[in-house]
Amino acid sequence: MLVSKTKLRVRYGETDQMGYAYYGIYAQYYEVGRVEAIRQLGFSYKDVEERGILLPVSELKINYKKPAYYDDEITITTTIKENFTGVRITFIYECHNQKGELLNDGLVTLVCVDKTTNRPCKVPIWFTNALAPFFV
Amino acid sequence: MLVSKTKLRVRYGETDQMGYAYYGIYAQYYEVGRVEAIRQLGFSYKDVEERGILLPVSELKINYKKPAYYDDEITITTTIKENFTGVRITFIYECHNQKGELLNDGLVTLVCVDKTTNRPCKVPIWFTNALAPFFV
Amino acid sequence: MLVSKTKLRVRYGETDQMGYAYYGIYAQYYEVGRVEAIRQLGFSYKDVEERGILLPVSELKINYKKPAYYDDEITITTTIKENFTGVRITFIYECHNQKGELLNDGLVTLVCVDKTTNRPCKVPIWFTNALAPFFV
Amino acid sequence: MLVSKTKLRVRYGETDQMGYAYYGIYAQYYEVGRVEAIRQLGFSYKDVEERGILLPVSELKINYKKPAYYDDEITITTTIKENFTGVRITFIYECHNQKGELLNDGLVTLVCVDKTTNRPCKVPIWFTNALAPFFV
Repeated sequence: MLVSKTKLRVRYGETDQMGYAYYGIYAQYYEVGRVEAIRQLGFSYKDVEERGILLPVSELKINYKKPAYYDDEITITTTIKENFTGVRITFIYECHNQKGELLNDGLVTLVCVDKTTNRPCKVPIWFTNALAPFFV
Repeated sequence: MLVSKTKLRVRYGETDQMGYAYYGIYAQYYEVGRVEAIRQLGFSYKDVEERGILLPVSELKINYKKPAYYDDEITITTTIKENFTGVRITFIYECHNQKGELLNDGLVTLVCVDKTTNRPCKVPIWFTNALAPFFV
Repeated sequence: MLVSKTKLRVRYGETDQMGYAYYGIYAQYYEVGRVEAIRQLGFSYKDVEERGILLPVSELKINYKKPAYYDDEITITTTIKENFTGVRITFIYECHNQKGELLNDGLVTLVCVDKTTNRPCKVPIWFTNALAPFFV
Repeated sequence: MLVSKTKLRVRYGETDQMGYAYYGIYAQYYEVGRVEAIRQLGFSYKDVEERGILLPVSELKINYKKPAYYDDEITITTTIKENFTGVRITFIYECHNQKGELLNDGLVTLVCVDKTTNRPCKVPIWFTNALAPFFV
């Protein structure tokens, strides 16, 4: 299992007139979480694109429990539960505030797309190899 | 059944470096869709807040089929499938591009919250009354 | 002189916890304004990019007079005051709310960049030709 | 003189189809910069609002020199050049990338507004007192 924790602060421009972090901003927070999770593998998401793989999102789910407020420090926990075998990659998320309260949980599924053909393709072997040590 | 259609164009600032409308922007598009759906009831979402009801999101799901590109004209179809009986309100979504291709479908569930107590409350009677004619 | 007017509504996700449309969102509103201004010339901003010209921003100025609120209908007035002779293009802006109150004014200057060389270049002749009738 | 440096990474959702960090996102980066500058004074921007002072923006200026790209590490340098005497507060900005290249410079002016009267007011004495040691 790969577990990655990243912290960020809610920006003023991310709040809405309820005083909450806008519900749509978590798509961006989850993206920050998976970028940092991938960095643990020894390459960056940028490298993935430069090696010819795009990773568009095919599914997003978020269950909201509690709102975050301006200047809250959010911990995003990103988990990869099993190594990839097909064309899809799933990331599991939890966001907590600085009091340790669960704000929301969710998941994002990405599809591997070959940049040259613009068609779905299997997760590359260098990606699954980098992940393998986390599933011993 | 209440069905509402709204159109908007993908802004340049909403694209990402893949050239796609960023996956997180649909949370905002869905919000535009439900605001226009509510306007059909004879009041605005703004009125709802002014009458003391907040409607934070408790659940978001999106299944992405195809990307939208800069300057595409998106039609957001928002559907309310049944009148509300509890504390939650569910909106069903589909986004299509100008060629009629389905880009994504999804749902958003809102919770009714009483602004004074900051606690969940039943969907107000003036709201369900306004919806009733759509479910005859 | 080319003058273009576009309307849009302030989205919920664009407000902040003061209840104002976030000050940074006007960069996006101004972009919407200039896209519609360019459309009057018989081609789209998208066409401009497809013809090999990028138009990154070199300067942004906004003077804020009054805030906009959620669901306000904003009229963006975009003006091109003189035809282009060099590598830069300047757009002048005013935003008004539905009561006709001036919310802010400002300007954006773009630089013409040749996509193949990635270097600044003169505004293409087909662009200045399309603008010429507005400066007779 | 108060000088504050903050680092952040360009998020994927902040890029546009040119592959640049969208020009409008710097309004948010500048906001992050001034929040961290204020934190050096011994209170937070959140505290300022809780003490009854709102600080809406009255002026924004940005001169763009070079673009930032996805995953670039940006250093935002925020400077307050003199203590405040009236109703306005000005912050001077520079953004650099990880190679030390200047991406843009600019300024933001805020107006002090009394939350109860919703009218401009003088910068409070506890604010100028906290700043005083930086201008000895």
